[in-house]
Amino acid sequence: MGATLTEKLLSEHCAGGELEPGETIDVEIDQVLLQDVLGPLVWIEFEALEFDEVEPDVAVTYADHQVYQFDGDDTATHKYLRTVSQRYGGHFSKPGNGICHQVHRERFIEPGATLLGSDSHSTTMGGFGALGIGAGGLDVALAMGGEPYTLNVPEVVEVHLIGELDGWASAKDVILELLRRLSVKGGVGSVFEFTGPGVVSLSVPERCTIANMTTELGATSALFPSDTRTRQHLRRLGREDAFRELSPDDDATYEERIEVDLSAIEPLIAEPSMPDNVVPVSEVAGTPVDQCIVGTCTNGSYFDVATVANIVDGAEVASETDFVVAPASKRSIEILAREGRTEALYAAGVNLSESTCGACIGQGHVPAPESVSLRAFNRNFKGRSGNPDDSVYLASPEVVAASAITGEIVDPRDLDRDPPAVSLPDDMTRTDAEIVGPNHRADVYRGETIGTVPLKPRLPSEVRGPALTKAGDNVTTDHIVPASAEVMSVWSDPQACADYTLTRIDEDFPEKARAADGGWVVAGENYGQGSSRENAALELAVLGVDGVIAKDFARIHFANLVNFGVLPLTFADDTAYERIEEGDDLSIAGDVADLVRGGAEQITVRVNDDWTFEASVHLTDAERATLVAGGKLSQLKREQ
Amino acid sequence: MGATLTEKLLSEHCAGGELEPGETIDVEIDQVLLQDVLGPLVWIEFEALEFDEVEPDVAVTYADHQVYQFDGDDTATHKYLRTVSQRYGGHFSKPGNGICHQVHRERFIEPGATLLGSDSHSTTMGGFGALGIGAGGLDVALAMGGEPYTLNVPEVVEVHLIGELDGWASAKDVILELLRRLSVKGGVGSVFEFTGPGVVSLSVPERCTIANMTTELGATSALFPSDTRTRQHLRRLGREDAFRELSPDDDATYEERIEVDLSAIEPLIAEPSMPDNVVPVSEVAGTPVDQCIVGTCTNGSYFDVATVANIVDGAEVASETDFVVAPASKRSIEILAREGRTEALYAAGVNLSESTCGACIGQGHVPAPESVSLRAFNRNFKGRSGNPDDSVYLASPEVVAASAITGEIVDPRDLDRDPPAVSLPDDMTRTDAEIVGPNHRADVYRGETIGTVPLKPRLPSEVRGPALTKAGDNVTTDHIVPASAEVMSVWSDPQACADYTLTRIDEDFPEKARAADGGWVVAGENYGQGSSRENAALELAVLGVDGVIAKDFARIHFANLVNFGVLPLTFADDTAYERIEEGDDLSIAGDVADLVRGGAEQITVRVNDDWTFEASVHLTDAERATLVAGGKLSQLKREQ
Repeated sequence: MGATLTEKLLSEHCAGGELEPGETIDVEIDQVLLQDVLGPLVWIEFEALEFDEVEPDVAVTYADHQVYQFDGDDTATHKYLRTVSQRYGGHFSKPGNGICHQVHRERFIEPGATLLGSDSHSTTMGGFGALGIGAGGLDVALAMGGEPYTLNVPEVVEVHLIGELDGWASAKDVILELLRRLSVKGGVGSVFEFTGPGVVSLSVPERCTIANMTTELGATSALFPSDTRTRQHLRRLGREDAFRELSPDDDATYEERIEVDLSAIEPLIAEPSMPDNVVPVSEVAGTPVDQCIVGTCTNGSYFDVATVANIVDGAEVASETDFVVAPASKRSIEILAREGRTEALYAAGVNLSESTCGACIGQGHVPAPESVSLRAFNRNFKGRSGNPDDSVYLASPEVVAASAITGEIVDPRDLDRDPPAVSLPDDMTRTDAEIVGPNHRADVYRGETIGTVPLKPRLPSEVRGPALTKAGDNVTTDHIVPASAEVMSVWSDPQACADYTLTRIDEDFPEKARAADGGWVVAGENYGQGSSRENAALELAVLGVDGVIAKDFARIHFANLVNFGVLPLTFADDTAYERIEEGDDLSIAGDVADLVRGGAEQITVRVNDDWTFEASVHLTDAERATLVAGGKLSQLKREQ
Repeated sequence: MGATLTEKLLSEHCAGGELEPGETIDVEIDQVLLQDVLGPLVWIEFEALEFDEVEPDVAVTYADHQVYQFDGDDTATHKYLRTVSQRYGGHFSKPGNGICHQVHRERFIEPGATLLGSDSHSTTMGGFGALGIGAGGLDVALAMGGEPYTLNVPEVVEVHLIGELDGWASAKDVILELLRRLSVKGGVGSVFEFTGPGVVSLSVPERCTIANMTTELGATSALFPSDTRTRQHLRRLGREDAFRELSPDDDATYEERIEVDLSAIEPLIAEPSMPDNVVPVSEVAGTPVDQCIVGTCTNGSYFDVATVANIVDGAEVASETDFVVAPASKRSIEILAREGRTEALYAAGVNLSESTCGACIGQGHVPAPESVSLRAFNRNFKGRSGNPDDSVYLASPEVVAASAITGEIVDPRDLDRDPPAVSLPDDMTRTDAEIVGPNHRADVYRGETIGTVPLKPRLPSEVRGPALTKAGDNVTTDHIVPASAEVMSVWSDPQACADYTLTRIDEDFPEKARAADGGWVVAGENYGQGSSRENAALELAVLGVDGVIAKDFARIHFANLVNFGVLPLTFADDTAYERIEEGDDLSIAGDVADLVRGGAEQITVRVNDDWTFEASVHLTDAERATLVAGGKLSQLKREQ
């Protein structure tokens, strides 16, 4: 039986475990990618683990989200990231050099490599036949130290492409079509492999746009084959040496097969406020737009910006519309400047910005209330733009540029002109002017924004403390640690960030937790849903919280709680949830450490020494060992 | 006796008053310029005054300070400014088109014109032989309605230029030399006229850089003659029609004469944290720099950016240094792109940003704590960068670019290369792609950020209320209404902004004032020093405060209090200040309106009906009339 490309790459990188559905496999990591919002915690953890040196061949930290440096703390964080990267043998990409996924694919990625990234769009690397996976910070820190990454063996889905894109249809429309068909949950636990005769019609930048947004399907990763077009593109980038031909076996078997006829794709658009809320552009044509933006790791490549330049050449942006273009990398815009084509952007009235994720995460160009923003981005979740009541549409650069000129959403097929024919230049090389290399003698600059991660002691025998707060259902990680500008400025300082923990639900929570020096969070269903941010678990540990007792947990947050040594228990019977009140004294009957270590699946909790209830302990052996050790950091430190 | 150029332009535009020192003159205003921080209040006042139409030939509102749009309210404010400009016959310059003074001088200013601007650097227009004056918002609103501007007749200072700039010396060094000699108070009440054989050696952009920063001398305005170089520059801009030759009479007499030998100027630098803290660059050479920036209304012209491009061409920005270039106008950078010269900026690792004031006012690229920022800007006041503990140096684009490459402050004469020889291109024209013209049918968008200005009733006969707070000496307008990002986001909504009034001194002040529905601020010496922001007076009116009793007042704030109908009284004897306590009941003996109207120079204040003190009333007849009417807005509305 033949192997999928996913199976081939996982086999090559297998350091343990079994490559079977339902099992986990330990994957050796060739390359690591960090950014400037989640990256600082990764480096803090790396240092707490006392690694001497970055082990993977390539570990690059990108200053990309906070390029505008609205706060001096952002600038200080960039200085920390530069110096800590230098000190431990990593690379640092300076603010303005570009977005992690774009610069990494231009400068570093190699077909066949595994990449672990502290950013969810690490799937972008699939456009080069490399397996890019987004992961939690602690896992990335461990990978930087040379540890393999433990992955639930994914299902492999074949996306069989036939035909060729035609007219105004673009790669963005291909992934919007998949989102329309499969929804934002359609790819959970899967790697999407792109196969079939249509693949060769897509350039590498187009493949990257598609692979990038498989993240919006919930996918673990995505893979295109590495073929003649990959070789050609690496040659343009001056890195043909890195080429390696890769494809699945002809008789590979997949869990599922999806067929997409590229020639049938038409311009699509995701309406507010979910990327799978997809309709043909023609359905919403005529909607006035206040703001248009092209950029991000999805649509900010040379190919995308050149497409925009082509469309706006000789035209003018509508009076009522702002049009911002933020190239995803300096290389993209430098090449366009080299060709004398940025002039067209300026002349048309485009606000050509810095190379940054910026507006995609609400950092700059926040739309006005009650306004319409049309973006060639990847996500339009409510409020992500920085305005809680935003109306953000997602489309291709072609649709966005055409709409910027007309001042309303337009199906570009209705324009009286041919679609742009953008070809990639033969020479897309660039110097490393903005990549800072290792310097082991560098002093690590910490400033006041870089804190430390606490090492919890081993799980004690006796755990007793108050119910600090009683929350309802569906508490998100954004409730636990908000992503507002104010709070994000202290994300790299766990002690300072702790002051905001759960304050959206209970403003006295940090104070109560500190005073109690222990205690519990009591919650309803689906506790910890939303973003994977690990500080939502870390901050409970900082505050000394013993555990969370909930009706049930979101999967990733549950793992994060274990990683940071916070006991996650579930109510065996929901009536106990109803009965518990804030302030009740909760203690576990028996020796907790022994119970957890010994595999107990149920434990008894005493309330006010008055009544008891049963709590379930859903933990693997590995998770039990981690919890008993006081969390993964403490566990690994002791193993060293 | 011959006339100075200042006298000629004032005579031409005189609508009343007398052109004599110590007198005031009413000046007809040809052009008005607004920006997006202080401009919204101007438009709110314009609307409150119920003007039907903008009267001056040119009234342009620029979206320049908040181009990054960090908050949706900034974006909403831009939409308000666009629509209100359209509705009343003004022009609007879109965010990203550039900084008010730069775009205005490229597109609108005409030699011999008078310009009133809601921005202090309106003196820039002097580079074209136009009289640009910065003014408070209400005065600008009145000028937009066609009213003349009342000016204290300035002293005219002659700056006699001989010789020519040589080597690495630049126009920036000329104004730094004047600051070194005269200090930041040296120009108060004066217009600086530049004369002598050295004038013709300076290009119009160089003249503008010098005129721009006469604001840092405290000057009322600045004037260069309009000569062959002016005509040549207007031709480049496609506006030769606007040319008019202008110069002072040969036998003009000046209050003071300063001679500057341009050939003796060397590269200078202002050390932290005052623009007059000037030393030769060589004195601080070798200081490591974390951040370099070129831009602003001072040094963001084509000439400046081309100079930077020339210096960095083929070089690389130092690893430890960030280099941001924010062109002052789209035109500047578009022409450079047209010439194929932006590539050099990108290749060197410059972060080429949007056309915005941005970093100069702490909006983006805020320096890290304990770091050194070297900027080709105009001001380095402590904290203005957005970091309260900043270390900001000011220098020419040449010095900044050279230092960005070396990573430390460098005297460019120590570089092994010739200074850049930048010549201006013959064609500096550009379309009006980003200038939105009048549209009287436009609906004015107000959103939630645009408030209204209250019209106070006439001054009553009886004024009685508590001493709401008792402040010490040197209360600044920044204490009264802070310029933090949070507060600035509500500057255009006086009702919302009132919640921050004086809270830096007394956090309960707004609450107490609202509860009392009247009352007094009691303060020591120099109350209201610092920025001219009129909302520091307006917000007291919004809160219903009757007046301020202080030991003495800063001049501009005193005028603002009168404009908004808040009684400014001074203690005749400071012992009363010592005796008054917060909460004391203060009432004025007699009919207050009659006393103020009648010219009383001293009035008696009763304290708790227990003891009394005398307060001085230092007011002109015009000011008395304004106060009795309840402030200028109420006065003008009643006169209509």
